[in-house]
Amino acid sequence: MAEDEQTKQVKTLKQRVWEIIFEAETPAGKLFDIVLLCFIGMSVLAVMLETVAEFKNKYSSELLFVEWFFTIMFSAEYLLRLWCSRKPLRYATSFFGVVDLLSCLPTYITLFLAGTSGFAVVRVLRLLRMFRVLKMAHHVRGAHVIMQGLVRSRAKITVFFFAILMFAVIAGTVMYYIEGNVEGTSFTSIPMSIYYAIVSITTVGYGDVVVQTNLGIFVTTIMILTGYAVIAVPTGIVTTELMRGKDNESDHTTDACPSCGAHGH
Amino acid sequence: MAEDEQTKQVKTLKQRVWEIIFEAETPAGKLFDIVLLCFIGMSVLAVMLETVAEFKNKYSSELLFVEWFFTIMFSAEYLLRLWCSRKPLRYATSFFGVVDLLSCLPTYITLFLAGTSGFAVVRVLRLLRMFRVLKMAHHVRGAHVIMQGLVRSRAKITVFFFAILMFAVIAGTVMYYIEGNVEGTSFTSIPMSIYYAIVSITTVGYGDVVVQTNLGIFVTTIMILTGYAVIAVPTGIVTTELMRGKDNESDHTTDACPSCGAHGH
Amino acid sequence: MAEDEQTKQVKTLKQRVWEIIFEAETPAGKLFDIVLLCFIGMSVLAVMLETVAEFKNKYSSELLFVEWFFTIMFSAEYLLRLWCSRKPLRYATSFFGVVDLLSCLPTYITLFLAGTSGFAVVRVLRLLRMFRVLKMAHHVRGAHVIMQGLVRSRAKITVFFFAILMFAVIAGTVMYYIEGNVEGTSFTSIPMSIYYAIVSITTVGYGDVVVQTNLGIFVTTIMILTGYAVIAVPTGIVTTELMRGKDNESDHTTDACPSCGAHGH
Amino acid sequence: MAEDEQTKQVKTLKQRVWEIIFEAETPAGKLFDIVLLCFIGMSVLAVMLETVAEFKNKYSSELLFVEWFFTIMFSAEYLLRLWCSRKPLRYATSFFGVVDLLSCLPTYITLFLAGTSGFAVVRVLRLLRMFRVLKMAHHVRGAHVIMQGLVRSRAKITVFFFAILMFAVIAGTVMYYIEGNVEGTSFTSIPMSIYYAIVSITTVGYGDVVVQTNLGIFVTTIMILTGYAVIAVPTGIVTTELMRGKDNESDHTTDACPSCGAHGH
Repeated sequence: MAEDEQTKQVKTLKQRVWEIIFEAETPAGKLFDIVLLCFIGMSVLAVMLETVAEFKNKYSSELLFVEWFFTIMFSAEYLLRLWCSRKPLRYATSFFGVVDLLSCLPTYITLFLAGTSGFAVVRVLRLLRMFRVLKMAHHVRGAHVIMQGLVRSRAKITVFFFAILMFAVIAGTVMYYIEGNVEGTSFTSIPMSIYYAIVSITTVGYGDVVVQTNLGIFVTTIMILTGYAVIAVPTGIVTTELMRGKDNESDHTTDACPSCGAHGH
Repeated sequence: MAEDEQTKQVKTLKQRVWEIIFEAETPAGKLFDIVLLCFIGMSVLAVMLETVAEFKNKYSSELLFVEWFFTIMFSAEYLLRLWCSRKPLRYATSFFGVVDLLSCLPTYITLFLAGTSGFAVVRVLRLLRMFRVLKMAHHVRGAHVIMQGLVRSRAKITVFFFAILMFAVIAGTVMYYIEGNVEGTSFTSIPMSIYYAIVSITTVGYGDVVVQTNLGIFVTTIMILTGYAVIAVPTGIVTTELMRGKDNESDHTTDACPSCGAHGH
Repeated sequence: MAEDEQTKQVKTLKQRVWEIIFEAETPAGKLFDIVLLCFIGMSVLAVMLETVAEFKNKYSSELLFVEWFFTIMFSAEYLLRLWCSRKPLRYATSFFGVVDLLSCLPTYITLFLAGTSGFAVVRVLRLLRMFRVLKMAHHVRGAHVIMQGLVRSRAKITVFFFAILMFAVIAGTVMYYIEGNVEGTSFTSIPMSIYYAIVSITTVGYGDVVVQTNLGIFVTTIMILTGYAVIAVPTGIVTTELMRGKDNESDHTTDACPSCGAHGH
Repeated sequence: MAEDEQTKQVKTLKQRVWEIIFEAETPAGKLFDIVLLCFIGMSVLAVMLETVAEFKNKYSSELLFVEWFFTIMFSAEYLLRLWCSRKPLRYATSFFGVVDLLSCLPTYITLFLAGTSGFAVVRVLRLLRMFRVLKMAHHVRGAHVIMQGLVRSRAKITVFFFAILMFAVIAGTVMYYIEGNVEGTSFTSIPMSIYYAIVSITTVGYGDVVVQTNLGIFVTTIMILTGYAVIAVPTGIVTTELMRGKDNESDHTTDACPSCGAHGH
């Protein structure tokens, strides 16, 4: 009888923990979300600052403490999620399950590898912790609508990507032919020239690769202007898609016109 | 009786000053607005030119005169606003009240601090005067509509910001892993790499940080193209919001369709 | 009688010349337009190539011939326009009248000034001929629609300009405070810092002025992201305006709905 | 009789090959498309890597083998297309027919020219193979819609191009006048200055040509801000065109309103 009650209590506890961790409507759930977001932000900041030489030298021990504090916190969160999840395996293999695991695992592994392993592995593990920022995606409301807009425009965006790439490949090859033989050129290979073409068409324009010949300047000018006109198309496309989505939405919530039976007018 | 009349006269004066300063429909109010805008523009220009070494050396005394002229003008304006405002305290604590105070205060403080205080404080105070430009926001019509559009798209813009930041953090970390160990690299830390990612994704592309390895060029190309596609989304979002706003507006001003009783068709 | 006929003939000639020069529907008018466009393009190209040292040295005499050929052509065109225009004075003082005059005048003046005048005046006159390109604006169809879209969005574009400028002034001042005291800084004055801010916000990013401090990098990142979000607004504004224009247009051409008497549904 | 059957069999074979090569609905046709796309991608990659010195030195013989493998494959594809096409001449003279021919021809020609011909011709032929990427355009679905959007906005895009070019010519000339006489200037000629203007207006901003004088900075700032406002217009234009297209589309698929007989409401 006592055992039964205990099982029940555990169940209720499990239920309550689940509500706090997975839902955001209750005050406790909200608080949990906010604290978690702060922890993620601070731990990402700590990993970032670890790579700044002057900062690392000064606050080496503080960074180590912070690192272990957040690792233990995220481990606890991961275990709690596993425990109270109704389908633990499904959670563990889901995108956010993997991200949650990767948020704490690297720190433990570096501990075991410490002396023995090579520098490269440790470096990857240290940087993997930056992916904790992905945990945040969990908590951003409204991302849904934007994702839908992107997904619906998927086909057109793919075409657009393809078009830019093909244009950049052709333009890059032409630029390589024009500038490739000039002394001291930065157009040392076709991949480099395609890099130049993409950097120009998208209006980034670093300036690390620049033309030297008059013909190169002329072709670049044509290329930029053409690329500039291409901006207009994808913008229009996504807008159209979002509007279509809005129209459909309003269509579902209004009744049909009684005089003609048609929707959406 | 005479006193009463005087009070009345003061009240009428107060009323008239209030109309001139706070309203813009009357000719006097319009003139006041235009003169004030010119004064703001000229005083901001003066502070700007003060930092240009060659100009400062030549016109040192003229700049001092101009500075005090505008300070006294803005002080007078501030006091008049305080005096004729119906709720002086509310004005003084409002955004524009603080801006108005900050427009004249720094000059007086630098006078008192002259010899004693350190250079840093004086420098802040001198630069604070540049914020006079905010006084202009008061007088721009139509800003209301744009602000509304921005405020209504607030949630979506926040999501978009978050997405860019998360993308930049991940991309920056990957770039740091690729380029961080190359000799003479500019990717000296993760914050620097994130700076590179943001400068690239937003198509600014200063060119102070550039890749050196072939893999870095490849990843940068992918990153830029992805970032370029992201432009399309926020643009579409705000357009949609502005249109929704327009639709609602027209909805309020037209009657319901007599044949079906529905609005907006 | 013979005189009367002659007057009539002159009138008819005037009429015909007017049709050729000012209208574009007749075959002769179309031909005139095309020839003129080619002449403008070629003369602008000639002035451009005149400033390229290696080209000027080689083809000095050819350029001189081309210059005089086009000058005489444009002079003839200007005189014809003056002669056959119904209101010569109005044409001479109109925008395109002044442009037409400026297209031929500079060459004559440089002839008279040849030996005597200073280099600077001749240089201005030589470059003034580049403004011949404005003659082209006359012949571009469809420019009307775009101009209307711009004019209708005028108020909102002004607000947007103002907002960017104010933002750039504030951001530039902050950047000047942060970077102005660093050794070897490019932020030598507030105008220079505002130039940096505008180049960054508009995503141009030359890279001639770049930050050096960590704080500067952080503020620049914030500034760029904010500026990037601002792009979305003007785009949406003009789109909305163009659509409103389209809606009104279609409103004028369709009848009112007979069942409800309302337009535009 | 046997001969007749053979002819029939050939016909059926021709029919089947035609279905595989020209259509994409059947499983075999789909497989053919995917294999071809992979081949195109890999062959383009091979030509690209050939220009990277370090790669060429290491894998010289592998690249030669790959080159001949793809050339023979594309030759076979070209011959098959010619053979089974109903109108071989029309295919051979079509855009994709020429592209298909150019995909295999250059390799054969370089074989014959090997020792004798100059370097320049071989170089062009080698680079011509990069145009194989155009074969891909054949297989991109959805490109149709975007092309239509662009074609429908053709007139307005032309106007926009013209406007940018005219603006850049004027701005470039002014910049040349301001910066052309400064020592160590990059504004060595008007074409160079126009290049600067276009790079600035389109927000590319390489930074290879930058201003040095205060006046130049001021004019550049004005130029950039104006160019920035121009982005808004073409974007709005294409969006409007795409929407008009959508409206018309829905018009065709819905019946007229029975109460008023009008379409599209």
